[in-house]
Amino acid sequence: MAKLALPIEDLEEAEALLCQEIAHRKMPLFGAIEAGGTKFVCAVGTSPEDLRARLELPTTTPGETLDRVIAFLEEEGQDEPLSAVGIASFGPIDVNRASPQFGYITSTPKSGWQNVDLVGPIRRAFRLPVAFDTDVNAAALGEGRWGAAQGLGTFLYITVGTGIGGGGLVEGRLLHGILHPEMGHMRIAHDWRSDPFPGACPFHGDCWEGLASGTAIEARWGAKGQQVPPDHAAWRLEAHYLALGVTNLICALAPQRIILGGGVMRQGGLFPLIRLETLQLLNSYIRVDAITERIDEYIVPARLGNNAGVLGAMALAADALGGRSERF
Amino acid sequence: MAKLALPIEDLEEAEALLCQEIAHRKMPLFGAIEAGGTKFVCAVGTSPEDLRARLELPTTTPGETLDRVIAFLEEEGQDEPLSAVGIASFGPIDVNRASPQFGYITSTPKSGWQNVDLVGPIRRAFRLPVAFDTDVNAAALGEGRWGAAQGLGTFLYITVGTGIGGGGLVEGRLLHGILHPEMGHMRIAHDWRSDPFPGACPFHGDCWEGLASGTAIEARWGAKGQQVPPDHAAWRLEAHYLALGVTNLICALAPQRIILGGGVMRQGGLFPLIRLETLQLLNSYIRVDAITERIDEYIVPARLGNNAGVLGAMALAADALGGRSERF
Repeated sequence: MAKLALPIEDLEEAEALLCQEIAHRKMPLFGAIEAGGTKFVCAVGTSPEDLRARLELPTTTPGETLDRVIAFLEEEGQDEPLSAVGIASFGPIDVNRASPQFGYITSTPKSGWQNVDLVGPIRRAFRLPVAFDTDVNAAALGEGRWGAAQGLGTFLYITVGTGIGGGGLVEGRLLHGILHPEMGHMRIAHDWRSDPFPGACPFHGDCWEGLASGTAIEARWGAKGQQVPPDHAAWRLEAHYLALGVTNLICALAPQRIILGGGVMRQGGLFPLIRLETLQLLNSYIRVDAITERIDEYIVPARLGNNAGVLGAMALAADALGGRSERF
Repeated sequence: MAKLALPIEDLEEAEALLCQEIAHRKMPLFGAIEAGGTKFVCAVGTSPEDLRARLELPTTTPGETLDRVIAFLEEEGQDEPLSAVGIASFGPIDVNRASPQFGYITSTPKSGWQNVDLVGPIRRAFRLPVAFDTDVNAAALGEGRWGAAQGLGTFLYITVGTGIGGGGLVEGRLLHGILHPEMGHMRIAHDWRSDPFPGACPFHGDCWEGLASGTAIEARWGAKGQQVPPDHAAWRLEAHYLALGVTNLICALAPQRIILGGGVMRQGGLFPLIRLETLQLLNSYIRVDAITERIDEYIVPARLGNNAGVLGAMALAADALGGRSERF
């Protein structure tokens, strides 16, 4: 068993460290896996303040990638055993516990990853409760627990990157249903006269993701988002499309807050433009002060940043342990 | 089987106790109010099979209308007392129990009905639990209990009439949030080249309701929906717009079923067109047999018909009594 090294010269400090250690050890320890199409992020810890180990690894074959994930969690769980593992995955995935394919990545376009069981190998390796959800639902859960939506029961997390994805909670429950939301594939109003770009989605052309993802920006303007200057017309159009999608989600779900994350949102100028245009699109129809008077606190950036996914997986693990796998 | 112990010395007391026991064993009796902009529908009963009294009355002034509602419920509750009352109301309404305006119709365009307290007068008249929600959330609850969504936890109810409204449940909880959904005001794709009609919504022009409500049909074609022949191009366009909205709601919420009701949906030819176009719009992206193989059971007509609203109010009342005002 690992020993705790305490500074015996300073007994007060030693005591403080000991107390901290005891507090930490009381918290159950979780394994967290964010499964992405490009990379996997794994972590062990109890909360954002107690992230004891973190590993990023490239997404290669399912077998190799999962072996490395399992090896990392086994090593980090040697001194103090894990209590549960959470997996936040790219999709589409099967989140229906009654389905024989529960825990699988299903019909992804990513080569080699169709019909891959993620939950099974982890469960067999650790014999622990394993929670499983979309990366965006997990990120929403994490933002609710530790980030930009603390204390709320109904809110959404949207990521705008290579694609557009969305997840969220309604009255404390993660959004599921027949599968899981595919918010990026809503159709939004597309004015072909002012934007003749046909859209970049291989399934739907000019759906929300097809018009407003990072992929769409690059295809329309011939330059990656990071290379497009802040005063370029691209950003006004981008804000317009993002506001259209946000407006639709407000109308569909009446969330208490909408969190926007992902690479494209790092263009900081987008937030004020999206907020203004959302107000214009709603046109005071939904008369709630939280929107009409405090839009700056209503449409907000993600707080957990690069760790949103893996911390979301940790929150999933915590809920699985507490039997609250679908509660807030 | 349990026996009932009755005091045989005092037969009157025995009879009273027996009646009390019989009453307890019966289902509690509910008052139900569907508050609409044109008419109110009130009922007393325990379920669709036990609808003991029903009254329709025109929506005049708030004072007069509520007086008539209260008189009806008082009379119908004379022999057997009501246990709770449910109100399913047109909106926008305040459904936030923490708000001082909880139970009010708020910013409706309907003259004389702005900031009208519905729950207060009913609560004061009957001193009973009073449940309150939108007409469409209530209709969804009723369809879940007794109609087209029995056994499901996550589903939507959309009404297409003078306007378009939507409500629903997520994992057994009625959709609330910052207010309540306003699904009819989502923006959908509007191809101005093929449909130059600018939309009929006074707030948003060509939102979903602005393009596809009964009001929009009449304004675009110069005839009410009932007068437009079944083979008119109007219905293909109508199905297109309804499918666009339905597709967006599938992407946003992943419901297990979508129920369509309201006057416009009585044009029976719409359902096959909407189903076909929804499949085309989704383009096999959401690979769930319930959609790709069984769309006829996925996009379905309301089953409770004209009584959807008032039976929904009854379901709200039943849940209020059971302390389940927000559960399925």
